[in-house]
Amino acid sequence: MVELEAQILAKNDMLAAKNRGWFAGREILALNLVSSPGSGKTTLLERTIRDLKDRMPISVIEGDQATANDGERIRAAGAAAVQVNTGAGCHLEADMIAKGLAELKPAVGSVVMVENVGNLVCPAMFDLGERAKVVILSVTEGDDKPLKYPHMFRAAEIMVINKTDLLPHVDFNVEAAIANAQTVNPQIRAIQVSAKTGDGLASWYDWLQGEAAQARLAG
Amino acid sequence: MVELEAQILAKNDMLAAKNRGWFAGREILALNLVSSPGSGKTTLLERTIRDLKDRMPISVIEGDQATANDGERIRAAGAAAVQVNTGAGCHLEADMIAKGLAELKPAVGSVVMVENVGNLVCPAMFDLGERAKVVILSVTEGDDKPLKYPHMFRAAEIMVINKTDLLPHVDFNVEAAIANAQTVNPQIRAIQVSAKTGDGLASWYDWLQGEAAQARLAG
Repeated sequence: MVELEAQILAKNDMLAAKNRGWFAGREILALNLVSSPGSGKTTLLERTIRDLKDRMPISVIEGDQATANDGERIRAAGAAAVQVNTGAGCHLEADMIAKGLAELKPAVGSVVMVENVGNLVCPAMFDLGERAKVVILSVTEGDDKPLKYPHMFRAAEIMVINKTDLLPHVDFNVEAAIANAQTVNPQIRAIQVSAKTGDGLASWYDWLQGEAAQARLAG
Repeated sequence: MVELEAQILAKNDMLAAKNRGWFAGREILALNLVSSPGSGKTTLLERTIRDLKDRMPISVIEGDQATANDGERIRAAGAAAVQVNTGAGCHLEADMIAKGLAELKPAVGSVVMVENVGNLVCPAMFDLGERAKVVILSVTEGDDKPLKYPHMFRAAEIMVINKTDLLPHVDFNVEAAIANAQTVNPQIRAIQVSAKTGDGLASWYDWLQGEAAQARLAG
């Protein structure tokens, strides 16, 4: 079992390395958005696309077990999107990204957002060739989640704490959530936003634009 | 790959059948609680244990990637609990339940609640020998989730819509959520509760007591 898992991961890592080279060659910033179901990944993307439309060309690879809903929401927000349905599968793999890119044809110097299947466990193990994993944690999920799902928070470069508009209605300690994330990953950055009200999005956009600039320099 | 997956599932199904026989032999009601991370499974269990303490002996097998927090919360609520840490694993399997039962030694005619790893994908495929899967969906996750994660809602006998106290603050259509669940599983039952305020818990307790009575009859 363990050996076969290692073989699957090694094959995926090889294809992810190829994706990473392709992104570098085209000076594209690629991000892998991971979270529980319902943390607000799609809403964050819709808002980001609308707000940055004139400054940053964004396209999206949408991963879901079923439905084409999220791809349609992204296109309605004004970005190109490819929907990947994984069926019984619990995560995206690097070969799905390669196929998605062939269809999406993202421009040189643009941004590709991958919205992974909503799953705080399995996508942590699968490199897609992204520059960084972005873990979204909504305040309704509880501030203990980084400790209970340490692999994902260890794999992520940045944690976006979303739905801060609901903070008055739930028991969620922002400082505890950040401290818990830093316990499993001392380097992790944290940003607080409400994709619904727009609160805090300036910090997210600053981070995105910094990463996009670095992707162009590294290309 | 597919053949190996089939082998793993077949082995798990065999061990689950053994668990199911053991539960029947002891007239125990075994339930498998599944959901996204942060849907409120543990809070629902804590409240259920406190409210039914004198009517229904409950013990719990807690599944988490890491930490012993949930097991401690359950013991503080007054029930025996065994904590299973899956490490990188994304779901509980039947052999983990068998080991947990050997430690827990649940009484004849009692109720065993299994709180699975927070994951709306992988636990759908793994039978643990339970009488029913109970899927918990919190209103903050969105009413579209049954369509996007159809395998889990198809595998479940009942959907507990939790955190109804937050309905005034989120865009969640209860009727749409139930209709979506019934689209993938026409037989699924739905109950609305707030484990925090206690609202709607009477229906949950009625269902539990009906199932426990049937488990004793079937034993």
